[in-house]
Amino acid sequence: MYNQSRAVIENVYPQINGGSLPIKAVLDEIIPVRSDIVADGHDVVAASLLFKHEKERKWSEARMAHVANDEWSSSFPVTKQGTYVFKIEAWIDYALNWQHGIERKIEDGQHVTSELLEGMEYLQNIIDKANKDEQAYLKELIAYFQDNTSYAKAIEEAVSERLHDIFTQYPEKLLVNESPEFPVYVDRIKARFSTWYEFFPRSSSREPGKHGTFKECEPLLPRIAKMGFDTLYFPPIHPIGEVNRKGKNNTTEAQDGDTGSCWGIGSKYGGHKSIHPELGNEEDFKSLVNAAKALNIEIAMDFALQAAPDHPWVKEHPEWFKWRPDGTVQYAENPPKKYQDILPIYYESKDWKNLWQEMLDTALYWVEEFGIHVFRVDNPHTKPFYFWGWLIGEVKKKHPDVLFLSEAFTKPKVMHQLAKQGFTQSYTYFTWRNTKHEIIEYLEELTQTDQQWFFRPNFWPNTPDINPWALQGGNEAVHLQKYFLAGTLSSNLGIYGPVFEQMQSAALPGKEEYLDSEKFQIRYWDWEQENKLTTLISKINHIRKEQPALQQTNNIRFLSIENDQLLAYYKYDQTRENEILAVVNLDPYYAQNGWVQLPMEDLGMHEGQTIRVHDLITGSSYHWDKEWNFVELHPALPFHLFKIEK
Amino acid sequence: MYNQSRAVIENVYPQINGGSLPIKAVLDEIIPVRSDIVADGHDVVAASLLFKHEKERKWSEARMAHVANDEWSSSFPVTKQGTYVFKIEAWIDYALNWQHGIERKIEDGQHVTSELLEGMEYLQNIIDKANKDEQAYLKELIAYFQDNTSYAKAIEEAVSERLHDIFTQYPEKLLVNESPEFPVYVDRIKARFSTWYEFFPRSSSREPGKHGTFKECEPLLPRIAKMGFDTLYFPPIHPIGEVNRKGKNNTTEAQDGDTGSCWGIGSKYGGHKSIHPELGNEEDFKSLVNAAKALNIEIAMDFALQAAPDHPWVKEHPEWFKWRPDGTVQYAENPPKKYQDILPIYYESKDWKNLWQEMLDTALYWVEEFGIHVFRVDNPHTKPFYFWGWLIGEVKKKHPDVLFLSEAFTKPKVMHQLAKQGFTQSYTYFTWRNTKHEIIEYLEELTQTDQQWFFRPNFWPNTPDINPWALQGGNEAVHLQKYFLAGTLSSNLGIYGPVFEQMQSAALPGKEEYLDSEKFQIRYWDWEQENKLTTLISKINHIRKEQPALQQTNNIRFLSIENDQLLAYYKYDQTRENEILAVVNLDPYYAQNGWVQLPMEDLGMHEGQTIRVHDLITGSSYHWDKEWNFVELHPALPFHLFKIEK
Repeated sequence: MYNQSRAVIENVYPQINGGSLPIKAVLDEIIPVRSDIVADGHDVVAASLLFKHEKERKWSEARMAHVANDEWSSSFPVTKQGTYVFKIEAWIDYALNWQHGIERKIEDGQHVTSELLEGMEYLQNIIDKANKDEQAYLKELIAYFQDNTSYAKAIEEAVSERLHDIFTQYPEKLLVNESPEFPVYVDRIKARFSTWYEFFPRSSSREPGKHGTFKECEPLLPRIAKMGFDTLYFPPIHPIGEVNRKGKNNTTEAQDGDTGSCWGIGSKYGGHKSIHPELGNEEDFKSLVNAAKALNIEIAMDFALQAAPDHPWVKEHPEWFKWRPDGTVQYAENPPKKYQDILPIYYESKDWKNLWQEMLDTALYWVEEFGIHVFRVDNPHTKPFYFWGWLIGEVKKKHPDVLFLSEAFTKPKVMHQLAKQGFTQSYTYFTWRNTKHEIIEYLEELTQTDQQWFFRPNFWPNTPDINPWALQGGNEAVHLQKYFLAGTLSSNLGIYGPVFEQMQSAALPGKEEYLDSEKFQIRYWDWEQENKLTTLISKINHIRKEQPALQQTNNIRFLSIENDQLLAYYKYDQTRENEILAVVNLDPYYAQNGWVQLPMEDLGMHEGQTIRVHDLITGSSYHWDKEWNFVELHPALPFHLFKIEK
Repeated sequence: MYNQSRAVIENVYPQINGGSLPIKAVLDEIIPVRSDIVADGHDVVAASLLFKHEKERKWSEARMAHVANDEWSSSFPVTKQGTYVFKIEAWIDYALNWQHGIERKIEDGQHVTSELLEGMEYLQNIIDKANKDEQAYLKELIAYFQDNTSYAKAIEEAVSERLHDIFTQYPEKLLVNESPEFPVYVDRIKARFSTWYEFFPRSSSREPGKHGTFKECEPLLPRIAKMGFDTLYFPPIHPIGEVNRKGKNNTTEAQDGDTGSCWGIGSKYGGHKSIHPELGNEEDFKSLVNAAKALNIEIAMDFALQAAPDHPWVKEHPEWFKWRPDGTVQYAENPPKKYQDILPIYYESKDWKNLWQEMLDTALYWVEEFGIHVFRVDNPHTKPFYFWGWLIGEVKKKHPDVLFLSEAFTKPKVMHQLAKQGFTQSYTYFTWRNTKHEIIEYLEELTQTDQQWFFRPNFWPNTPDINPWALQGGNEAVHLQKYFLAGTLSSNLGIYGPVFEQMQSAALPGKEEYLDSEKFQIRYWDWEQENKLTTLISKINHIRKEQPALQQTNNIRFLSIENDQLLAYYKYDQTRENEILAVVNLDPYYAQNGWVQLPMEDLGMHEGQTIRVHDLITGSSYHWDKEWNFVELHPALPFHLFKIEK
């Protein structure tokens, strides 16, 4: 407990779990760092932020500035993928302290000969570190300080800004104190900005009732690319179990010709490293992946770690499953519910290390053989958290480009823990947030609490698993609002495409489940359909690509607008060069109007200054010279997406 | 990173700085512990709180209960002084999980023969741990479970509460996960509940102008004891420096006969281990300490680590002071201000380890030779934080009864850091909190933020250093209010006694300093004075001793009362057996009335229930049968102190 340091460093942020897990960032972001630093007495405290990429040996240093009330801040850029670490150093700067003291005494008219002699020590200390010019200057000062006849010059230079800068540049860090190290994991930009489209490749056929193939998916790509999507997510493409296969609408008895759930993985045709024969073969899939790449679309695969009863693993690795005393294998259950078409993996297995390794190998297989760099992970919350921490870590060590989306619609702390363990993005409760109050509350939780540092939301208005009440029977306006909100509140969004675009919201009665769900059967879609919704989806997607403020989620401020059906928000990129103001009418039936308050301070505006707000959807512009401005929105086009031009 | 545990433990509270420093408690408190615990899937999670005194080998265990939203809680009692540690264990309870599952299936009408066979494993696992009765029961169950003819009995017992209790009592902690350890420092009760009186022993003489002595202090003790004070704090009693001694009212030139500031410690008569000759000798002081003890009063000494220029340390340990290039010793300064009568200790000294040791020896000297167990530490914020962490730790290792009050009136984070380093109690901003809003805001900060765990407030209406604006020229009502607030908001309080009781608030013009301050001169006081203020101070002190709710600070709720001059609050002890309701009129000139809202839920009351509120000051009682109740308070007696009787 002997520690002679005088500066104490506490409450360093951003960090989660005391630095035992990394916070998240993407390339070229600036990480703002703050800390409390206190020292005894009145001496001048100094502090530095030290940071480096884990592969660098040398720390880079940025001086911290005192903000207020013993809070200090600085920031650093992250320019490489992988893990950065940062820490804080703090010390008493005796040289600056000397200068601060002598300045006050001179102002007070005191004679400071003795103080000048004291100052010599600080000049001598740094003379060897300084450059030639500075050395000459310091030597000159030493001469002045010693010579009574140059007292006037000496006291002028003793308090000079130049000397202050030199002291600041060459600090003598005596009795320096150091914080622990805090990690930052840096991903490629797509981790933060992505636009997902989901469809079932088996529904890609142009012929009703026929099983689609990868070959038939290829011609669908140009339309998806044109609409501005960059990530195409397929539900599992592996062989589908034939034992206990599910029938249409989740019935337990499959009829002849029923395709089963593609999440019931594994059959005599293979398991997680195989392709469902009816979709095509490895070459077809490679061709599709490459065709997509050529259009700047990445194929995201489903990573669903469970097995049908006829999965090859069951025979090859029976110890990876739980066997009951009656000799049968344990199928999935959530008592009293039973899921006989699915066997959960038995993570408590004595052979767990080989099991973990096989899961990792499976992911790496698709990464390395097929160039897959995005996984949507099915139900990650039913597998151990530390397993994910390990698997994601191992994959990213070799392939830092790989991104993982957590499909966990469950309790908040479980979703958060998965994100902390390394999931790049997470599904969210956005799907169920409809009113103004709900949306503001949820966004503030995501962007203004610690969640901003580890939980990267991906906003989906719908998924094959969720046909939300708000969309069931919803009109065009509801769909427009939902897509607009997803795409302008969050920089990551996705839709379960054909169903959403075509507003096919028929549900199983009383459930948030689609009727005739593609999870259990092939559906036929008009893949050429164009309508107002698809036009505006494309428009929103393209605007997102052009406006950096929409490529991040955390910089958002909700604005006052005196109407509960109108939601207004201001978004900006980290440099504040790009600023967006969005207004949405949440009422799908009636026009709504109100007065929106400009965030004058955020905009750096003064009263009476005129700004131009340019609607990126319609092309219209308005000149606003007041803090409060009138807007009216009709359900036919229920939003403004203004670029602010000052 | 291989960790097969399925339960993840996070956000364990109470803790400060990630458990690197202890939270504070006193004997016989119950420490409430909470944590977030999440596990994958739907299995039954179990968790225990483990705790022990540092000197015990074995952990005690208390099972945790799920509260809501993956938050778990439990608590443990602290019954010995010193450091306790606690940690949390969490695991999947496969036995309880099995019982939970079979119960759902039986309810659903499923046949569970196979599940009964599975259950045998869990019965076998614990049979050796169980007691005889339980063993017999378990064997019986095993028989039922295996025998088809006893199926009805088997399923009845499989879901029995008895089996549930046995499983809970003998958990099989497979793949258990463990939190870090978190320390709790337990003090004697006085750390939380103390009533301080301060006077200058040199002003104890019955003869105006004469230097008081310890001998003359002794006869003052019975009155102080009778008033209900339990801690008598003396400013420094050491020899006072003669070089650069300060004159009256802090003038730089002392006149003949000026006594100087007793904080300018050290002269030819000795230093920090000596006694100022004019006060008496060691025997006199011992006699005084013992006389006080006989009246249940502890003498608190001032621990002021600084030296007058003629302190023996300066000659004996010149390296403990900073020497300037001109050969003079560095006196205290806060440029441009100079304090030539004081030399700061040079903690950067090369000889710092010996220096620290001497400071420790000094404290131990008074503890071990004189039985002093309370120190008020002067300006601790001008000495290194880690020095205090070390010194307090070392003293308490040998003498856990010793308490340290931090006299730091400075920036919040500095005050907090001192408390975190181990100061038992701290002076506060209470001295400057006057309005209803200020008081509520400050108390909520002290009692409802993390400060409740490390910062133990001691409320002083005045000190020799602070003659607050609010008391300057203040009438009796102001003094009554202030004392009442100090003594009922906070369980630790103190007054700079003679000045406060006699309402002597003459100030240096424009400053919160006393005119003719005893810091620099002897004052003559009428030590027999009794007035309404002293009567009510005694009354309040005695009520504090009888009402446990007033012996702690953190259990407080402010109540709604529709008058900005009326402040109402509810306080309770940890068991809620003692409940107090206080109402204060903050207006020193006019009567105020209003309606106070009873905390019905906290009181466990239903609408229409009658309670009796018994005013402990006046003896009057009222029966209240409504949620809102009328009160009116006149400045002549500006408070109610109700005991709630249900």
